[in-house]
Amino acid sequence: MMRATAKPPRSPALEAAAAELIVAGRDFAARGWVPATSGNLSARLDAHTIAVTLSGRDKGALTPADFVAMNIGAPPPAGVSAEAPLHAQLYRRYPAVGAVLHVHSPTATLASLEWQAAGAVVLEGYEMLKALSGVRTHLTRVEVPVFANDQDIPALAARVEPRLAPGTWGYLIAGHGLYAWGKDVAEARRHVEAFDFLLAVERERTRRPK
Amino acid sequence: MMRATAKPPRSPALEAAAAELIVAGRDFAARGWVPATSGNLSARLDAHTIAVTLSGRDKGALTPADFVAMNIGAPPPAGVSAEAPLHAQLYRRYPAVGAVLHVHSPTATLASLEWQAAGAVVLEGYEMLKALSGVRTHLTRVEVPVFANDQDIPALAARVEPRLAPGTWGYLIAGHGLYAWGKDVAEARRHVEAFDFLLAVERERTRRPK
Amino acid sequence: MMRATAKPPRSPALEAAAAELIVAGRDFAARGWVPATSGNLSARLDAHTIAVTLSGRDKGALTPADFVAMNIGAPPPAGVSAEAPLHAQLYRRYPAVGAVLHVHSPTATLASLEWQAAGAVVLEGYEMLKALSGVRTHLTRVEVPVFANDQDIPALAARVEPRLAPGTWGYLIAGHGLYAWGKDVAEARRHVEAFDFLLAVERERTRRPK
Amino acid sequence: MMRATAKPPRSPALEAAAAELIVAGRDFAARGWVPATSGNLSARLDAHTIAVTLSGRDKGALTPADFVAMNIGAPPPAGVSAEAPLHAQLYRRYPAVGAVLHVHSPTATLASLEWQAAGAVVLEGYEMLKALSGVRTHLTRVEVPVFANDQDIPALAARVEPRLAPGTWGYLIAGHGLYAWGKDVAEARRHVEAFDFLLAVERERTRRPK
Repeated sequence: MMRATAKPPRSPALEAAAAELIVAGRDFAARGWVPATSGNLSARLDAHTIAVTLSGRDKGALTPADFVAMNIGAPPPAGVSAEAPLHAQLYRRYPAVGAVLHVHSPTATLASLEWQAAGAVVLEGYEMLKALSGVRTHLTRVEVPVFANDQDIPALAARVEPRLAPGTWGYLIAGHGLYAWGKDVAEARRHVEAFDFLLAVERERTRRPK
Repeated sequence: MMRATAKPPRSPALEAAAAELIVAGRDFAARGWVPATSGNLSARLDAHTIAVTLSGRDKGALTPADFVAMNIGAPPPAGVSAEAPLHAQLYRRYPAVGAVLHVHSPTATLASLEWQAAGAVVLEGYEMLKALSGVRTHLTRVEVPVFANDQDIPALAARVEPRLAPGTWGYLIAGHGLYAWGKDVAEARRHVEAFDFLLAVERERTRRPK
Repeated sequence: MMRATAKPPRSPALEAAAAELIVAGRDFAARGWVPATSGNLSARLDAHTIAVTLSGRDKGALTPADFVAMNIGAPPPAGVSAEAPLHAQLYRRYPAVGAVLHVHSPTATLASLEWQAAGAVVLEGYEMLKALSGVRTHLTRVEVPVFANDQDIPALAARVEPRLAPGTWGYLIAGHGLYAWGKDVAEARRHVEAFDFLLAVERERTRRPK
Repeated sequence: MMRATAKPPRSPALEAAAAELIVAGRDFAARGWVPATSGNLSARLDAHTIAVTLSGRDKGALTPADFVAMNIGAPPPAGVSAEAPLHAQLYRRYPAVGAVLHVHSPTATLASLEWQAAGAVVLEGYEMLKALSGVRTHLTRVEVPVFANDQDIPALAARVEPRLAPGTWGYLIAGHGLYAWGKDVAEARRHVEAFDFLLAVERERTRRPK
């Protein structure tokens, strides 16, 4: 496999990141959030490099060999998901971001379609909002941007870029899934869990017959 | 970490309580009832002291180090959830209460919003009511109080206090979750399971198109 | 504990039956079918005797000590569920019945309420009907009787008796749950799984907006 | 048990295929996709022979003894599901097919009934479509044929035959379940997971109150 990075492929940092992401993938698979080899997971190794899953791997049964190092300023190495530039975009924009997790849960997929025309899901009044880093009260208004899907990833990234803001911890791609991130794998996992809970509850709340 | 209690932090009683609550947390996490580090769990150590989870811990992967002792008549020690006084309130009010469990299940969150205006969920006619301590027949009427959420915990506790009554084994906080308790961890777990079942069935029964 | 049977309490037959029912209970608990210590499980030991769960035990964590032998022609021994006579009724009526399983799944509870006025759930056209012993085609019409709940178990049993018929493998008690049985534990488990699937699908099919 | 094949019953190829299908069955059972011993699983051994599950076995607890070799050009051996000819049909038609998996998930059963009159479920716009072999963009239109159920399997196979086409990776039988296939067990599992996700999301999307 060709690599676009000079990083040695099996560095201790890569192994450590892979170990954390393997556990995250197993947990997400058990919840049905990464069916049919969908989703991709990454974690920062240093200022310029991340560990990211290779394309097409079962996220519930990842091994260290399913990860490669990738330079966030260069094209993705061979075998990496075509969506890896969406990960790189977040690491470049926010030096404090340490992990980016992308899942295809049924809830995220449905919410993304239901709020696509609105352009965002607005969440407020939930105690669970406090699981998002920096939120201190349920009386907070959190917007989760929704983007139209696109196989042209640079074009999609260009639409994402202007809507990223401090305090944004996730976005939806319509008919596709959720991206969420955090300072480390634990915080990014907490954000994925919080968004899936919040979107599920918001969907159910707003559809309930009056 | 500063402690507001003279209790030695790792007493055998604390370890034993932690062991039981660790199992409860793992079970609740598997059911999706404590997502994104939400929820908190406590058990009585003696007349004046409880073991309670530290804030922000993954309830599905608790270790003994995630618990501290807390005096139910004093301010919560550093690192404990801001909601710990709601636990203390129950232990002070009911000397026979041995465990208090707080979960953020989707069902509890949705029911709390749907019955907020009514001020209580009324449950009757279910055989499962007999899982609540003291209930002998499905022909019992059980009220689960619902309170508006508040980041001011003493203010919230003051609203809870007058609605506590013998035979009340749980309440909901709107957009937030369920508190349930019992004479020991086993009974409190049984009450959490019973309430989640009852609220899920009652939601589904009352929303079903005619 | 007093026993109303001369059967030695820990016979090899009782141990063997308990071992099978422990596995069934663990499986049912994982599916959420026996929450809050609900449900009860039994298996035939001989023409006159069954093994049955003691009341109030967590069906997901049963041990051999949670079972006692019970004579199907005598009052239930102390500690056994008040519903044990409903088990005994089936074993007396059908010598070929080897196991009776009672669960409180949300689906069974809801279906029991939704079809209570009709007196039965009628299932037809499902391939899954072939999981019921003796059914050879999806073009079979299966009636699952529904009974009003009653804490007077002999009165409830008297209402059940005339509606039992060959080819009936289960019934619902309104707001309560499902009884299902079979020639052995494996068949009774298959029947519980089939009924829960069929009731879930039938509920969803009949409520779907047109 | 009589066998209609000259294949030695426990060849290494059969053992290897069984080992892969045992894992698939365990996973499907955990998801509730093969309740009450429903479903059947097969994998190709060579140009003329497949390994297939015996009828009535618990797909969550298969052992190598639950599989037999079957000639795809001959009547199924004794003990094999009556539906085995539907497996054989796919292996005969497509030499590149290496595995066929049949599940009875609630979602597949419901979707099969809801789209029976339409004759097919049309899926488009979902990123998850890319989990189907050969699909490169969410802007693909995938038709999942739906057939009326029939206990006359040759008659059913005759209706299936003209609707098979390259790029078709699954079909539904009304009130019954899903057949899906792929070049090997891993791809067939990925297709089952993708179809169940897509059908669940499409059902939910199309029923959501406006």
